Amino acid sequence: MTLRRVAYTGARSLAVETAGTPPLPAGHVRIDVAYTGICGTDLHVYHGAMDARVEPPGVIGHEMSGRIAEIGPDVTGWHVGEQVTVMPLVPCGQCPACSAGHDHICHRLVFLGIDATGSMQTSWTVPATTLVRLPADLRLDHAALVEPTAVAVHDVHRADLRAGEKALVVGGGPIGLLIAIVAHRSGADVLLAEPDPYRRAVAEDVGLPTYDPSAEDGAGSIARWTGGAGAAVAFEVSGAQAGVGTAVEALATRGRLVQVAIHPVPREISLHRFFWRELTLVGARLYDRGDFETAVRLIADGEIPAARLISRIEPLERAAQAFEALEEGGGVMKVLIDCRARGEDRR
Amino acid sequence: MTLRRVAYTGARSLAVETAGTPPLPAGHVRIDVAYTGICGTDLHVYHGAMDARVEPPGVIGHEMSGRIAEIGPDVTGWHVGEQVTVMPLVPCGQCPACSAGHDHICHRLVFLGIDATGSMQTSWTVPATTLVRLPADLRLDHAALVEPTAVAVHDVHRADLRAGEKALVVGGGPIGLLIAIVAHRSGADVLLAEPDPYRRAVAEDVGLPTYDPSAEDGAGSIARWTGGAGAAVAFEVSGAQAGVGTAVEALATRGRLVQVAIHPVPREISLHRFFWRELTLVGARLYDRGDFETAVRLIADGEIPAARLISRIEPLERAAQAFEALEEGGGVMKVLIDCRARGEDRR
Repeated sequence: MTLRRVAYTGARSLAVETAGTPPLPAGHVRIDVAYTGICGTDLHVYHGAMDARVEPPGVIGHEMSGRIAEIGPDVTGWHVGEQVTVMPLVPCGQCPACSAGHDHICHRLVFLGIDATGSMQTSWTVPATTLVRLPADLRLDHAALVEPTAVAVHDVHRADLRAGEKALVVGGGPIGLLIAIVAHRSGADVLLAEPDPYRRAVAEDVGLPTYDPSAEDGAGSIARWTGGAGAAVAFEVSGAQAGVGTAVEALATRGRLVQVAIHPVPREISLHRFFWRELTLVGARLYDRGDFETAVRLIADGEIPAARLISRIEPLERAAQAFEALEEGGGVMKVLIDCRARGEDRR
Repeated sequence: MTLRRVAYTGARSLAVETAGTPPLPAGHVRIDVAYTGICGTDLHVYHGAMDARVEPPGVIGHEMSGRIAEIGPDVTGWHVGEQVTVMPLVPCGQCPACSAGHDHICHRLVFLGIDATGSMQTSWTVPATTLVRLPADLRLDHAALVEPTAVAVHDVHRADLRAGEKALVVGGGPIGLLIAIVAHRSGADVLLAEPDPYRRAVAEDVGLPTYDPSAEDGAGSIARWTGGAGAAVAFEVSGAQAGVGTAVEALATRGRLVQVAIHPVPREISLHRFFWRELTLVGARLYDRGDFETAVRLIADGEIPAARLISRIEPLERAAQAFEALEEGGGVMKVLIDCRARGEDRR
């Protein structure tokens, strides 16, 4: 039996190729993949920035949905045909983080789609421990947003956000927008700072107020919005030095800054402001199973406007073009790769 | 009636002078000051770094003890002769921080000894709301350590420190040492990083393990101490870029960094580490009344080895020399100014 897959073959190079289906070890299942979303991390890999973890030719992708196609030995509780997504974490179970109950920040975490084979292929073999059940009637294109939504759920949880609080989200890409939506659904009063007009338009479409930090006096906007007190929470999702400064300056006394974006280099931070206002900075990484299950429910209940967030769906054969379109930016939010084998029913 | 006082008359200039005792407004009391400790902030003022807040000639000093000498109109619950210290905060009561119950981080906070007249004088007039009662049998030289001990109590509280946790204290001046002592008394396993040999010796004397970050491989020391897991808590009390780096690198997954020292310029921080290990940075400033009352109890119960922390006591007339000695560093921890008027009984 064969499968089709997108292989990362080196910086800015992807190849769509046919390969044999790997054996199905004990404790594993094989999934017929339906959709795989392209994540910011996938773009980093594509740029060649993560070759230390992704060895070419490697299959990336971890935002996915599909159906169980085959069940390996020693797997119970699952059956063929079930709609599933995957929480792509394989923790060691023994390091200090795992021992403390935080296995999503395992010191030796294997992240499927980076450290091991990912989902950008028609068929994906994963440990049954990573499976997350989806409702039978959930659209599988929408379900490809479960993983990034779980990130947003985790980030909002790390903020300890309470209804009625003002929350600034700095950066309105897919994760920033999902955080803003989840925070808004939690009862917070949300404002999104995003320079790209397309992204602002999507946010406004789904009912979120925005401002353009490249044009407006951000400090003035935030002061007016919060009556001079500052925001209770800021989510830093921009990954930029300027975004960090905006988030720190926006916060009220005892405000919480949730650090979501990945900053490849150290950033300058006003520790005096942290002292003076007794601010808190909280790092947030990935998610746990509870976050994933909450994300499934939010999408199944229509709380996440999935259709509005999915800008394009490209067939597997056009994965390279999809990556290029994302690189160009402008006019895209989330792009999915349709990983269904030819002839599979489309729904 | 006259008093003697130490006036800040400009950068690196102090004058001991006689002045008239100010009137006693309603709601105020006059204290015969016994001792005033010299704080790092007082040194900043002395350097001329805080002229925007301390207008020469101003009386600084806020770590103090004394006895009530006179009670103004509309003050109830206090009587002449009581031993007291002062929590030197006058909040506005109306700003967003005060409204949220955090009046120690009031947006318009008046800090006695900086924004208003301080205690480095024989007689000090303060609002009765700032008084904190001391046990009648507490030595007043020891009681001058209540204010910095309240800082330490507040910092340990902000860390949410639990018994058995490992806590690294970066910086072993008076505040760092008090934090280490309070954390140790709370049941934490404490390690103190301090380059100065005298300060390390004082810490070791009071039962705290230390290491010299300028000589030893700090990362190795911390890894051995924590079995590779990292510390649950780090207190940054050095005020230096290197200290920030040490604290961030020392932390275990989900570790908490309490920012105590004042950093006059932005610092470079690895936000990636905050993301990767889900660290938390917590700003800590001053104290509240509960912290002050806990500090009084710790000193009264002998939990704080006050005698060992007080390196020198200088008479008011020698205040300038005391500041100079502190500047030179080496061989001093806390220096007190004896503010008692001549002829007052000495105990």
